[in-house]
Amino acid sequence: MPLKAKRIGLHTQREPVVIMRTDCPVCRSEGLAARSQVLLRAGDREVTAVLFQQDDGRLAADEVGLSEAAWKLLGGREDELVQVAHVPPLESMRWVRRRIFGNELGQGAFDEILRDVVAGRYSDVQLSAFVTAGSAFPFNDEETFALTRAMAEAGTQLDWGQSVVVDKHSVGGLPGNRTTPIVVAIAAACGVTIPKTSSRAITSPAGTADAMATVTKVDIDLPTMKKVVRSEGGCLAWGGGLNLSPADDIFIGVERQLDVDPEGQLIASVLSKKIAAGAKRVVLDIPVGPTAKLRSREAGLRLASRLNEISRRFGIQSTCIISDGSQPVGRSIGPALEMMDVLAVLRREASAPTDLQDRALRLAAAILEIGGKADPGCGFELAEQVLEDGRAYQKFEAICRAQGRFGEPPKAHLQCAVTATTTGTLAELDNRKIAQVAKLAGAPDSPAAGLRLHARKGDSIVAGQPLMTIHAETEAELAYALAHASQSTDMLRIEP
Amino acid sequence: MPLKAKRIGLHTQREPVVIMRTDCPVCRSEGLAARSQVLLRAGDREVTAVLFQQDDGRLAADEVGLSEAAWKLLGGREDELVQVAHVPPLESMRWVRRRIFGNELGQGAFDEILRDVVAGRYSDVQLSAFVTAGSAFPFNDEETFALTRAMAEAGTQLDWGQSVVVDKHSVGGLPGNRTTPIVVAIAAACGVTIPKTSSRAITSPAGTADAMATVTKVDIDLPTMKKVVRSEGGCLAWGGGLNLSPADDIFIGVERQLDVDPEGQLIASVLSKKIAAGAKRVVLDIPVGPTAKLRSREAGLRLASRLNEISRRFGIQSTCIISDGSQPVGRSIGPALEMMDVLAVLRREASAPTDLQDRALRLAAAILEIGGKADPGCGFELAEQVLEDGRAYQKFEAICRAQGRFGEPPKAHLQCAVTATTTGTLAELDNRKIAQVAKLAGAPDSPAAGLRLHARKGDSIVAGQPLMTIHAETEAELAYALAHASQSTDMLRIEP
Repeated sequence: MPLKAKRIGLHTQREPVVIMRTDCPVCRSEGLAARSQVLLRAGDREVTAVLFQQDDGRLAADEVGLSEAAWKLLGGREDELVQVAHVPPLESMRWVRRRIFGNELGQGAFDEILRDVVAGRYSDVQLSAFVTAGSAFPFNDEETFALTRAMAEAGTQLDWGQSVVVDKHSVGGLPGNRTTPIVVAIAAACGVTIPKTSSRAITSPAGTADAMATVTKVDIDLPTMKKVVRSEGGCLAWGGGLNLSPADDIFIGVERQLDVDPEGQLIASVLSKKIAAGAKRVVLDIPVGPTAKLRSREAGLRLASRLNEISRRFGIQSTCIISDGSQPVGRSIGPALEMMDVLAVLRREASAPTDLQDRALRLAAAILEIGGKADPGCGFELAEQVLEDGRAYQKFEAICRAQGRFGEPPKAHLQCAVTATTTGTLAELDNRKIAQVAKLAGAPDSPAAGLRLHARKGDSIVAGQPLMTIHAETEAELAYALAHASQSTDMLRIEP
Repeated sequence: MPLKAKRIGLHTQREPVVIMRTDCPVCRSEGLAARSQVLLRAGDREVTAVLFQQDDGRLAADEVGLSEAAWKLLGGREDELVQVAHVPPLESMRWVRRRIFGNELGQGAFDEILRDVVAGRYSDVQLSAFVTAGSAFPFNDEETFALTRAMAEAGTQLDWGQSVVVDKHSVGGLPGNRTTPIVVAIAAACGVTIPKTSSRAITSPAGTADAMATVTKVDIDLPTMKKVVRSEGGCLAWGGGLNLSPADDIFIGVERQLDVDPEGQLIASVLSKKIAAGAKRVVLDIPVGPTAKLRSREAGLRLASRLNEISRRFGIQSTCIISDGSQPVGRSIGPALEMMDVLAVLRREASAPTDLQDRALRLAAAILEIGGKADPGCGFELAEQVLEDGRAYQKFEAICRAQGRFGEPPKAHLQCAVTATTTGTLAELDNRKIAQVAKLAGAPDSPAAGLRLHARKGDSIVAGQPLMTIHAETEAELAYALAHASQSTDMLRIEP
């Protein structure tokens, strides 16, 4: 017996949820109870969703309400008739069970699992079992390769029809590390093909896509992206709409809840996105520091060696750069504020943060060398020159205009300084706590919100001196961020 | 900024869900997005819930809608003002992470975890990680003991003020295995104190509580239960409302989704409920068969030995009985139909299923012996005698009346036979498929629905002979069950 599909405007992030009445005849005849997994079919389209039941007189007994995620995965149409039934057993879970008990999985197993994960057939419980098993018994190189490939192939795969396509990636965890726009501008200005896609913030106050969105259009479709890369050599687009390694975000959500980040999964996450984006050569930035994702130089080197090995198996040339992750990069946290730092570097302003510029040049140098535009050891000089003579800034503006527009980043209406309460030396900065204050101020949802730091590690501080300025769009958010900043005495630790 | 609490009649099984508008000021200032975990506080009461957002004009911007589970856990009051905030980090997850990486946990760790699990603070992802880790690295005896204790202590603990309190349990998986009412009646008639609580069906067509509910009131509170046990020596109550080892159902839900049943968790599940119910001596029935939970006699014996060992550590005397689990017990599946079988045995009717009677007598014998009412080896004779002379039936009726009422089980309006299509011998019965047909017929929600088998393993069958009769309350359910039964050719396998 079919039911009428209703879009009910329910936002559940990526989780497909459907709502039916407890007295719905399909629930009764199929024996469907709240929290059953159900399969919705409309013609040859289908979606697996979790069922909730609600008796508030809003749904009729012959209707089924779909959350936004369920609506999108099904390709819903208002009042269309859909069949609702029990979900057939998830065959690929047998592989997950084998993995739980410590058995190694092959390519076919990962392919099956990833197909079901991307189709939304895995519940949170099932996803977590996969991630947990990969933490309990770490994926070896064979498995990491197979997982990476399965993830890359489970979504869109771009092909640029040429062998020198370069990409870059920073292994997360460092606020303000907004080198990408500078690096892409320099590389593209030198003739490197660099079709860069970035993500929006997941847990951080700003992703590269959030920062770029303050000056241009980042939500571009594939044809537009291809046109931009053809004309400018590079792009700075949001990857979220392009379906590149779509399982990645799903796994990241689970890892965040568990606060685990198994290495094999991390490698697959980084490389599957690059492979799907059609990259043949990659430069990987690995910041290391006590509050960064990688806590020690040894851990950074170990990860670099595995990233290089797995890349090699895909025929991808890679360069890993271990960088300083002991404090935020630049002086700003938040989409628009970070973009102002980026623009200051590109425009060779005197106020440009030198650490951001140095990091960007180092990465650009590696890209120019791996991309065949500079001899080994000569990339830095070329990168510096292209930045100096304005070609990088021109390229950046050209990419933005090709993507749809170019404008200045917005400024926040409210600003308030946080001052030092003691005199001494700024001994340590806690990346995580600084990020937290920026988020409380409204970043990344309010693009202009965030904070600007006025001191760096090692600076001498006098009591009463401003340590940071918080930028916000509402009084409430400003108050939240200020309260949190004044309570977090170890966020910026001053030693006498 | 507080929000007004609204009960929105949303059934999500045990998952606390709250709904707010995307433009709710608290969402904006706290940076709460769909699928965030949030903490609701009203005075000193609190609940952790998952947040969904909905813009359908039903909730005001200053309101928060609570699912039934969230409402119950919070102790909600209509229009009460509640504070909504981010969930503080779940400290006990550090133990789960340690367990994921293969480290053994002590009593304190399990206590912390169980406190948070029972308070509803663990998300599905986090619960699954705990269960998966316990499958990847099986709990040793020390850990199983600690987990059992933590589970028992996380809920209500009954104390009957005497040393000889007996309980029984069947390790799931066998349709129609409704021995409990008979066993309790015989044991109580002989003076054994047996405060039996049972569950409703989770995945099966009937639990003991579902069957008992067709003849008496099973949803009794603790004072009533104590009064019944004081006057009659035993009870046959639903345990769901008594909060005995409340984490058990939560873990079972996760295990079902993963289709794993790690032994340590199984032992903790069985024993924590008995310990919380105040039992000092237990008889455990372990059915073994190709489609039962335990597939081999060896597996059954191994489980029995660990159950005995962990019981011993709690100072509990235990007897495990390995029984035949190769086919359903009795001839009926479904709450009312199974109760008719039970009543036929208790009333010494000629039609009473002998296998159900034999199993019940064997378990009752073990209880009489462990309970000190019969010498070793003499329990069976005493049990038979008490059943024969009607004392068991009288006791059963007395227990039912003490619980609130006694009446006959209901009969289904629709019945239809499934007949054999070939001639031969009934070689095998698939417990799982038979259970499925009974569920499609409406069991356990329609108490009278289910099926009655007309043949047992080894019987000679003639084509056209009725193999089973399906009982249902609606034409749709009858049609579903019939269609499924006629398609499942290997449910009742007839060999020439």
